[in-house]
Amino acid sequence: MEPKSIPQYLFRQLFENESSTYTYLLADLATKQALIIDPVVDTVERDAKLIQQLGLKLRYAVNTHVHADHITGSGELKKKFPDCKSVISNESGAKADIYVKDGEVIQIGETGKTPVILECRATPGHTNGCMSFVSHKNKSVFTGDALLIRGCGRTDFQQGSSDKLYTSIQTKLFTLPDDYRVYPAHDYTGQLCSSILEEKTHNPRLTKSRDEFIQIMANLKLSHPKQIDKALPANLMCGIQGDD
Amino acid sequence: MEPKSIPQYLFRQLFENESSTYTYLLADLATKQALIIDPVVDTVERDAKLIQQLGLKLRYAVNTHVHADHITGSGELKKKFPDCKSVISNESGAKADIYVKDGEVIQIGETGKTPVILECRATPGHTNGCMSFVSHKNKSVFTGDALLIRGCGRTDFQQGSSDKLYTSIQTKLFTLPDDYRVYPAHDYTGQLCSSILEEKTHNPRLTKSRDEFIQIMANLKLSHPKQIDKALPANLMCGIQGDD
Repeated sequence: MEPKSIPQYLFRQLFENESSTYTYLLADLATKQALIIDPVVDTVERDAKLIQQLGLKLRYAVNTHVHADHITGSGELKKKFPDCKSVISNESGAKADIYVKDGEVIQIGETGKTPVILECRATPGHTNGCMSFVSHKNKSVFTGDALLIRGCGRTDFQQGSSDKLYTSIQTKLFTLPDDYRVYPAHDYTGQLCSSILEEKTHNPRLTKSRDEFIQIMANLKLSHPKQIDKALPANLMCGIQGDD
Repeated sequence: MEPKSIPQYLFRQLFENESSTYTYLLADLATKQALIIDPVVDTVERDAKLIQQLGLKLRYAVNTHVHADHITGSGELKKKFPDCKSVISNESGAKADIYVKDGEVIQIGETGKTPVILECRATPGHTNGCMSFVSHKNKSVFTGDALLIRGCGRTDFQQGSSDKLYTSIQTKLFTLPDDYRVYPAHDYTGQLCSSILEEKTHNPRLTKSRDEFIQIMANLKLSHPKQIDKALPANLMCGIQGDD
């Protein structure tokens, strides 16, 4: 067992300004194995440089879902780090190296030592294939566009369903311990994280009944995402159009 | 003593997009006492709402220095939270309720229990009055505009001195343990934190000799900050012009 003073885990949150996307870098410091959640193609150079400077071995580029507002960096990261495999949910309909299902785990680091383990929790509703990832050791959940800080993902395209989203959040996320930190795929107000307790208590949409929630979501009157026409086809192909 | 599973400390990083400023909220959860570092006037409503939702008692609004690129939120926060005192360094030349000097501490929470303590370290060079704040318990340092991620504050106005800044960073910050996290007042690339080791190893300016550093800083050719003409006079008065 490592002495307590040696950190065994690296966690880094990163921000892409154009689409207000958060990317997360997690690493097991014993083996230097790393994974990245929701990388953005525009910030791949920054992220690759950081990974290299930290001496990490990127194993997985994980997407919470097929994004409509930016192109994933998975494809470009795979070019830079040949050992990196792209990961997305089975239900997403997107191309990837590895497909995950509800209840499965993604691991970096060695079993029996101090690996970083992400538990996959299917949280459909924003899209059919949305997956949240829970790190119990670090009391964190990466919620993609399912649960946002004081908000949630829209449900008006990409097989969105307010009814499904409500169920996902109430049964798969709000059942986590109150002190788990919530790390979403986006925030548009400069908030970087929240907690399960905070969202259960203060989320203006999710503190409502199912019927009220569905009503709120039906009346958001959101504009069409700027990048959707190029983002969706690219993201279905791991971020690289017309390329394997 | 509290059982280990109860968190005793709240930490929240926040971002103001216009000036790319990071604001930090720290709280002692036993007493609910809180302090905020480098609040921005434009995001005071967001921050005040968060403080209220979390049930915190804001005791201090701390500024790392007199900012030239945004107006501090200290004055507006003092209006909303009457028990809140503004804090800045003695050398800053700005008006505040409390002035701190190198080596002094700022504390929230009860002595003998688990207070949050910030050690003040004078780190002049960007301005004469720049102060960094170290939380040893949380292995973090809030560096203001002295040390940025892979950069540092400019030294070409507000009594800036590259020579002083080099000394400050090398003697007051790089002497901290390698694993201390670096939380700056700004980042323009979407990076949220770093570590002392990373900056000692990869900061392109601070890995150079003093002479090379001074040369680099003399040749940055930066434009005049957009907001300086209104920010400086306002910040010298705790963020509120013509008001006590």
